Amino acid sequence: MLAVVLAAGTGSRMGLTAKATPKGLLKVAGREILYRTLHQLRECGVDSFIIVTNRRFAPAYRDFCRRNRFKCQVIENPHPEKGNGYSLYLAKPYITARFVVVMSDHVYEDAFVKRAVNGTGLIFDRLGVYIRKGEATKVKVEAGRVTAVGKNLPAYDGFDTGFFVLDREVLDVAEELLKTREKLELSELVETAGVPSTQLSGYFWMDVDTPEERKLAKHYLIKLSVKGTGDGWISRLINRKISTRISKYLVDYLTPNQITFLTFLFGIFSALVNFYSIPLAGVLYQISSILDGVDGEIARASTRTSKLGGYIDSVLDRYVDFIFLLVLACAIKPDFFFWIVISFAIFGSVMVSYSTERYKAAFFEDVYKVVPAMKYLLGKRDERIFLTMLMCLFNQVKALFVILAVLSNLRVILTLILVWKTKRAEIVL
Amino acid sequence: MLAVVLAAGTGSRMGLTAKATPKGLLKVAGREILYRTLHQLRECGVDSFIIVTNRRFAPAYRDFCRRNRFKCQVIENPHPEKGNGYSLYLAKPYITARFVVVMSDHVYEDAFVKRAVNGTGLIFDRLGVYIRKGEATKVKVEAGRVTAVGKNLPAYDGFDTGFFVLDREVLDVAEELLKTREKLELSELVETAGVPSTQLSGYFWMDVDTPEERKLAKHYLIKLSVKGTGDGWISRLINRKISTRISKYLVDYLTPNQITFLTFLFGIFSALVNFYSIPLAGVLYQISSILDGVDGEIARASTRTSKLGGYIDSVLDRYVDFIFLLVLACAIKPDFFFWIVISFAIFGSVMVSYSTERYKAAFFEDVYKVVPAMKYLLGKRDERIFLTMLMCLFNQVKALFVILAVLSNLRVILTLILVWKTKRAEIVL
Repeated sequence: MLAVVLAAGTGSRMGLTAKATPKGLLKVAGREILYRTLHQLRECGVDSFIIVTNRRFAPAYRDFCRRNRFKCQVIENPHPEKGNGYSLYLAKPYITARFVVVMSDHVYEDAFVKRAVNGTGLIFDRLGVYIRKGEATKVKVEAGRVTAVGKNLPAYDGFDTGFFVLDREVLDVAEELLKTREKLELSELVETAGVPSTQLSGYFWMDVDTPEERKLAKHYLIKLSVKGTGDGWISRLINRKISTRISKYLVDYLTPNQITFLTFLFGIFSALVNFYSIPLAGVLYQISSILDGVDGEIARASTRTSKLGGYIDSVLDRYVDFIFLLVLACAIKPDFFFWIVISFAIFGSVMVSYSTERYKAAFFEDVYKVVPAMKYLLGKRDERIFLTMLMCLFNQVKALFVILAVLSNLRVILTLILVWKTKRAEIVL
Repeated sequence: MLAVVLAAGTGSRMGLTAKATPKGLLKVAGREILYRTLHQLRECGVDSFIIVTNRRFAPAYRDFCRRNRFKCQVIENPHPEKGNGYSLYLAKPYITARFVVVMSDHVYEDAFVKRAVNGTGLIFDRLGVYIRKGEATKVKVEAGRVTAVGKNLPAYDGFDTGFFVLDREVLDVAEELLKTREKLELSELVETAGVPSTQLSGYFWMDVDTPEERKLAKHYLIKLSVKGTGDGWISRLINRKISTRISKYLVDYLTPNQITFLTFLFGIFSALVNFYSIPLAGVLYQISSILDGVDGEIARASTRTSKLGGYIDSVLDRYVDFIFLLVLACAIKPDFFFWIVISFAIFGSVMVSYSTERYKAAFFEDVYKVVPAMKYLLGKRDERIFLTMLMCLFNQVKALFVILAVLSNLRVILTLILVWKTKRAEIVL
């Protein structure tokens, strides 16, 4: 399948930066708007692209496609003032079947694109949760077909998401219309051709016209990048609220792998601080736990997720936890018997992770999805670290080790029991 | 797809036991011969079965199918003396398309069945690695079609594996032949109809006619049940040689889960023996390492593999290793600084497993397959345990902990580096 990107607008409302860079190539949450959209489309099997732009921006778009290895054809529209319906018409010679049309300045979440490519005609959103409804383009639908598109419709059924799945015939209508008029907007074309419509509501999408909207889009992308599974209570209630703010700031400057590495160093540093001050070390450890969410958030928000990154991050986390507990143990100068408790605490802490990861390796599925009770079991990393901070602050390090030794190993035993019960039941079914 | 099982023979050569039980229901390596074959066929999409047997055995086969939830139709052949070609002919009313024919007394390895169902006609084996060639049924092939089948052919191209993929038309030939004669063997039918042939050589298969062959089949099934990946040098050179012998003995008496549990108890016991005698504990620990291979071997040989069993086994192994090292540590009464070494040894030992399992959880593939160098890296469980035994025997426990602390953590770091390099290269490609 093929997609046409309409990118001939001059982006005048974007202010100074946009004079040099076309809107589609502005970065939102660490990635060009267009990169995100083309990447999402490619993941859904749409892998050929036609970008219709003006003369001034064509070289930048050509360079962008080459650099990122997108299969693109960049077409110049010598008369952008003739409207984006005319831009679309210029792509006609390349189109042989059903095709997708997207705007170069719209940002979508992955789930939206995944569903939208399977829709027909104009994709509209009844709710428009994330957009400023006053300024949005509205759509009126009758019997499944678009009857009116515009900013000031007296009555409407939803909002134009800037995403279309069209049949080739629409371009014949455009050709016909352009015989009698100079200018053609896509909205007029869609109205006249009476294209079908598909409702797709509640997902994140927005067009990025102003610097404020660019900020807002980044805000939502980071918020949506929080992966639920595996987060404990502390992550949900505290860590994620702070880490997303940090991510919003860092996403423009650092890659996920750089953050993974820095977070690792910070974690090891927090461990060593135990030699100097245990309460301070505890606080730094909790900060490192918050920072630990940032790499994943940035990776997802900037479409840079990698299994390799996740793998390295997990192994390094285990080392941070181990070194922290070991240095903390040394700092309290334990006797022979207490070293046994410490050993159980250190071992149990890794085993919490081991028992869930080994599950995934065996069953190729997430234990938190299959055994929902696991989500509410205490003892996940964020919870252990928060507890560690509290106990360090209140000078209860010995009690901490006892609790960790019991809690973590108990959690592993409960994991085994829950998995056994769930999987046995599956076999009997 | 449908399979016809020919099971009307009386199994006279099997001796006394076979008088009561039909040959197809005799257990080989913990499973009825027929269970194995039907299970393998079902895994390949052949899920309806017709068993043609004699009057005496029909109730036993019906009971077997009901108990094991196979979709079976059991047909009685009132005249087994008319030959197995006649038995096949009795299945005619149920057959509407291409179908599989297997003998009730043939044992195959999974890989054979997986390929054979995609073959055509008589499946023959040029090599016959696992069979007594003198007594085997030979096949002569010309231009891809079977021209002669028999025990005493002057010249032949391979051996009859007892596995056929036939077209419905063969049954018309059988009908025609039975008009003029009283008795029809499948071999005659195949010759006369000139069915096609498919060569499939080198896999394990054999027919089980005598108690000796039954033993031999068990021997091979256990041998083939050794899973290569993840085995270190000690497993390959020592442990597997002993564990397969134990498996051969235990496969008839215990389930894999029972063995997992007993091995776990034995491992914990070996750990506690450290309080009494460190050299003895070391030897027992090595024995538990050998026993640890048995559950998997028996599971694979008796078609009882379960991801759940593998999962539980892995987590319990981690606890055995931890408890052993911890008790051993206590037994040598370490000072403050040596506890740090012990902590690294305990942590590193889990991390060896964690780093490979976490890889599988991330990439859904085996790290040993993707990064072959990993296979030769020292520090796998079998190697660590063997080293532990040696050092316990030679009273070098302190040196052992130093080596384990360095070796295991070094292995994890090398794993990270190798994975990083391999996966980075994949991304660039």
